[in-house]
Amino acid sequence: MGVVVQNIKRVARSTVDAFAAGRYGVATVHEALGRKGLLAPDIKPIYKGAYVAGTAVTISAPPCDNWMIHVAVEQCQPGDVLVLAPTSDSDAGYFGDLLATSLIARGVKALIINAGVRDTKDLTDMKFPVWSKCVFSQGTVKETLGRVNVPVVCAGALVYPGDLIIADDDGVVVVAREEAAGVLEKSKQREADEEEKRKRLAAGELGLDIYKMRERLAALGLKYIDQADTD
Amino acid sequence: MGVVVQNIKRVARSTVDAFAAGRYGVATVHEALGRKGLLAPDIKPIYKGAYVAGTAVTISAPPCDNWMIHVAVEQCQPGDVLVLAPTSDSDAGYFGDLLATSLIARGVKALIINAGVRDTKDLTDMKFPVWSKCVFSQGTVKETLGRVNVPVVCAGALVYPGDLIIADDDGVVVVAREEAAGVLEKSKQREADEEEKRKRLAAGELGLDIYKMRERLAALGLKYIDQADTD
Amino acid sequence: MGVVVQNIKRVARSTVDAFAAGRYGVATVHEALGRKGLLAPDIKPIYKGAYVAGTAVTISAPPCDNWMIHVAVEQCQPGDVLVLAPTSDSDAGYFGDLLATSLIARGVKALIINAGVRDTKDLTDMKFPVWSKCVFSQGTVKETLGRVNVPVVCAGALVYPGDLIIADDDGVVVVAREEAAGVLEKSKQREADEEEKRKRLAAGELGLDIYKMRERLAALGLKYIDQADTD
Amino acid sequence: MGVVVQNIKRVARSTVDAFAAGRYGVATVHEALGRKGLLAPDIKPIYKGAYVAGTAVTISAPPCDNWMIHVAVEQCQPGDVLVLAPTSDSDAGYFGDLLATSLIARGVKALIINAGVRDTKDLTDMKFPVWSKCVFSQGTVKETLGRVNVPVVCAGALVYPGDLIIADDDGVVVVAREEAAGVLEKSKQREADEEEKRKRLAAGELGLDIYKMRERLAALGLKYIDQADTD
Amino acid sequence: MGVVVQNIKRVARSTVDAFAAGRYGVATVHEALGRKGLLAPDIKPIYKGAYVAGTAVTISAPPCDNWMIHVAVEQCQPGDVLVLAPTSDSDAGYFGDLLATSLIARGVKALIINAGVRDTKDLTDMKFPVWSKCVFSQGTVKETLGRVNVPVVCAGALVYPGDLIIADDDGVVVVAREEAAGVLEKSKQREADEEEKRKRLAAGELGLDIYKMRERLAALGLKYIDQADTD
Amino acid sequence: MGVVVQNIKRVARSTVDAFAAGRYGVATVHEALGRKGLLAPDIKPIYKGAYVAGTAVTISAPPCDNWMIHVAVEQCQPGDVLVLAPTSDSDAGYFGDLLATSLIARGVKALIINAGVRDTKDLTDMKFPVWSKCVFSQGTVKETLGRVNVPVVCAGALVYPGDLIIADDDGVVVVAREEAAGVLEKSKQREADEEEKRKRLAAGELGLDIYKMRERLAALGLKYIDQADTD
Repeated sequence: MGVVVQNIKRVARSTVDAFAAGRYGVATVHEALGRKGLLAPDIKPIYKGAYVAGTAVTISAPPCDNWMIHVAVEQCQPGDVLVLAPTSDSDAGYFGDLLATSLIARGVKALIINAGVRDTKDLTDMKFPVWSKCVFSQGTVKETLGRVNVPVVCAGALVYPGDLIIADDDGVVVVAREEAAGVLEKSKQREADEEEKRKRLAAGELGLDIYKMRERLAALGLKYIDQADTD
Repeated sequence: MGVVVQNIKRVARSTVDAFAAGRYGVATVHEALGRKGLLAPDIKPIYKGAYVAGTAVTISAPPCDNWMIHVAVEQCQPGDVLVLAPTSDSDAGYFGDLLATSLIARGVKALIINAGVRDTKDLTDMKFPVWSKCVFSQGTVKETLGRVNVPVVCAGALVYPGDLIIADDDGVVVVAREEAAGVLEKSKQREADEEEKRKRLAAGELGLDIYKMRERLAALGLKYIDQADTD
Repeated sequence: MGVVVQNIKRVARSTVDAFAAGRYGVATVHEALGRKGLLAPDIKPIYKGAYVAGTAVTISAPPCDNWMIHVAVEQCQPGDVLVLAPTSDSDAGYFGDLLATSLIARGVKALIINAGVRDTKDLTDMKFPVWSKCVFSQGTVKETLGRVNVPVVCAGALVYPGDLIIADDDGVVVVAREEAAGVLEKSKQREADEEEKRKRLAAGELGLDIYKMRERLAALGLKYIDQADTD
Repeated sequence: MGVVVQNIKRVARSTVDAFAAGRYGVATVHEALGRKGLLAPDIKPIYKGAYVAGTAVTISAPPCDNWMIHVAVEQCQPGDVLVLAPTSDSDAGYFGDLLATSLIARGVKALIINAGVRDTKDLTDMKFPVWSKCVFSQGTVKETLGRVNVPVVCAGALVYPGDLIIADDDGVVVVAREEAAGVLEKSKQREADEEEKRKRLAAGELGLDIYKMRERLAALGLKYIDQADTD
Repeated sequence: MGVVVQNIKRVARSTVDAFAAGRYGVATVHEALGRKGLLAPDIKPIYKGAYVAGTAVTISAPPCDNWMIHVAVEQCQPGDVLVLAPTSDSDAGYFGDLLATSLIARGVKALIINAGVRDTKDLTDMKFPVWSKCVFSQGTVKETLGRVNVPVVCAGALVYPGDLIIADDDGVVVVAREEAAGVLEKSKQREADEEEKRKRLAAGELGLDIYKMRERLAALGLKYIDQADTD
Repeated sequence: MGVVVQNIKRVARSTVDAFAAGRYGVATVHEALGRKGLLAPDIKPIYKGAYVAGTAVTISAPPCDNWMIHVAVEQCQPGDVLVLAPTSDSDAGYFGDLLATSLIARGVKALIINAGVRDTKDLTDMKFPVWSKCVFSQGTVKETLGRVNVPVVCAGALVYPGDLIIADDDGVVVVAREEAAGVLEKSKQREADEEEKRKRLAAGELGLDIYKMRERLAALGLKYIDQADTD
């Protein structure tokens, strides 16, 4: 059952770099993507303020067994993000500062893991961001094979190797490789559109007017009454 | 079913300002109030260090539908706090930086929401505090009417429009409009009392002596034994 | 049923000081201890960056009743860590800034509590670290006796009075009194071993080679295939 | 703070009896009520198949303290349902077979409790139904006063004394006293309407046609494609 | 975004019938499949004792909106199992006895839903089995389009339309269409193998001997000691 | 680290038999024991109506590895109950019908496991009761050694080999070997006392009178008011 898929196709570097340059956030990308691709909200960053755009190297790992991370490191290129999904629910600490040192040496940008992580103070000091289900020091073993660069379901989201991963304080979203370029354009546009609205809202205009909502609200029967009339 | 109650009665501005000036915390106010009014502990601030005292504008919103927030913005006055309770459990991201921009323009101090929030990095940079059930980018729709300024049960606490909301790192407490002035006095007194005790405790006096607990403990049968005698 | 065990045996001060000096983290100590002793991962620090090594003074407390903390304070010595386990699950706020003031006056280093804590902003400002199940302002009473310095199960871990407690951003681990000195040596050694590996990994060597994993992986049947061959 | 409100107004007995006779379920009543009033879904029956319609006698109880149940028993009349909400989250076992014996003697129909219950085998054998948050034998005390027949928030729903409580395998719904008669009529009508639809659906007609959904689906842009065309 | 994929390929009827005839359980099939395909353990049957083998018709539904179920019914054939995954977490009651009546009329065997269900007493009486995340009467709307017969991630498992669904008291497992025939053979074989072992175990033979474990345990260092020697 | 402790001391067979004969329930025994020893309420029976009294054979097992169950079977005697605590949180299905067959052959009465179980339909048909954290078919491995008949913390309760285990619909309680005989006497007495009270309560007497609570309630300040006076 143990397999490592090599020479995976990845989202183009230039596309990834454009996301990183624009710092298009998870909320923006999720919208640009048509409202899909989010990992569950219990996947949280170990520290605040990090932003990552990178290409997925995926791991399907046995529960409480982190051996495949070592195998996956060799498959990583600069700009990758490691994505680990255990085959059975686990909060064990699969990952710590030594593995982070190794990943940094290879140019890996982050780890996304539907399990536990440890040495979080060191990881924070090293500025290696991790989005995980929990923080827990419980040790793992190196006994059973898993699979690297196969499709995985990670925290409810389907991730293929080479997909684009965007992660920030809001969580994590995955963009299929074929959709990444299109989503980049839509994210840019979305940000531009929002900039305009932001100015109007900051000036005190109401969304009710900017988005022309009043008519539709009235048509649906929204009533305005006075509190004094409710007693 | 859609309704907006206007011209609600609010806790007096001077009372709210006095809470804000004194920064009476959630724990203090909860005690002064007779130990009630707390929202459930899973309602947490998106960043640490914020303190808010304000008057509630309430929203009863459909699940995964944030339309009523736009409607509620128009009802807000400077010093208000928006309180949103969905009618069915949801972790969707009802709120982001554009709505925060709009609320700031109207002088609103914070959002309390028993659902999700997104753009948390931006909200933190803007210093617009939010207490929410979770952080999640899942988009919402604008399809179904809800109700603004009706009584809501938010995270287990009953909130009427115009009630006083106090929120800090410890969570959120609601004070009924009629009780706010009295709770202010008790909060002041409580802080004063504690200041005295704090000095004595810092000097090494024991609570056992300050609060004269030894007799009652003995009466109830508390025994002191030596570890050496337990083997 | 109320009892206070006095004159407990504690891990030697010099051993505790050596842990504190080396800042051996929870993950390291858990490994040095043979992978046991961890408290459940829902016990989290109220602020990041604290490190504590200390000797346990234990409290078995009734639900929502914090009276025994006052009793336990008197039993504390400089270098102790208070460990509280309620006899029935509770998220009430057993502890706040006044009790922290009292503990600081006695040289107590931290509180570990499988329940709630409040005044967390003050505790953070005072730099008194707490690891708790939740943050909640719900008040407690002082009605029922409990037990001080008896063995307790706290968040799934068995803690005897006098045991060594290590806590950091990763959580909390308990080391039995008899094992503390041995674990100190193993922790030192582990850190030394890791330092060597850290350098090699930082230089780009792979764990696969450093730990000589390739042979065993092959023996178990790990296959490397090309993505182009999987279509 | 201890108070018992006596001589509460209740939903008319004839109305309650009509609900019981028709066995209008929680789902039906919730719809007839305008989709509100549900207790959270973690409030579950201890055995399957029970149906209850009754009038609420409410208890606001301290955590892990069941004293007020004894006080409330005296306030109960035949046809009542006891509704207990602790003031702080608790899974303790507030209730067992002796209290059930006492309630049965007074004609009380059921207990709804946002906490734990025990002796569930006996309660099942006695056919005294309980909807609770959990089953747990943890004992409670009788130390602190609470309040009987005051408004309570129970598992997220606001319950006034005398309100109508409907409970079945689906959970629990509360109907305000003033709305009960109207909800009865709507429930009857709803059941009648559904009977008609049930027959048509059983005969193979589609909801798409019965409810005339096809046009609106098409207008919103629903597309039908062939799987063979998606490859 | 609304789409319905028609004329999907399904696992062969004869294969499905063979699973149903043999009543190969979820545990057996999960093993025969190579230990994958399980839905999360919080997906539970509303009553005990049901067994289902059928072909998936999938629904990707908006949160709290059950419109697409009506659309999907038309796509169902005898022997199908409906599988619904909401696009945002929801515990609303998407499904009740009327929809079940309609599905039964079309020969549908069951519903698997990562959300809530209601009318569970009726569904039980009708013997229409449902595996759901929760039981909750919260109503849904019919406002937003979704997708029918697209791949969905349901409770952590990837389900394609036409896949084989096996469900029993242990939960739910999905088998990819291409693997179903092979898994049938392996399930048969597995049952046969187990029958042999069951007899030997029932006769008192030990697994240690039947599976020849003693040597490997000894090689790994398992030690047998006497309790009397541990004091 | 792998060890099996043999020839453990057990609670006397006659004591265990007396518990089984009297069917003293978990609630009764927990009270007779001084309100301790309960396993957490998420440990639930796979079917209702079972009652077990037996002596603990304990297993400390690696996560997702059920090898040690086979080792433990050999250590079991008629009347034993297997108690398994994984060293890291796991919901994997450690146990199914083959292992149950083997345990039944040795006279083992039940399994208590802080993890998952599968084949629950078969186990129910075989009448082999299991109390577990969840039902899940996820397979386990046989790779790593664990420990048999060592003290374990199982779902928050400390269990020594040979301790008395009582389990029923309410959950599980553990009684230390030395306390079992005393707890038997107290359980008998408690049941006798309750029988008397049950008759009086069934006859309509109030607990307020039977337990003479009225005076103490009044002394604490309980007030009775009329609802008409609260408006």
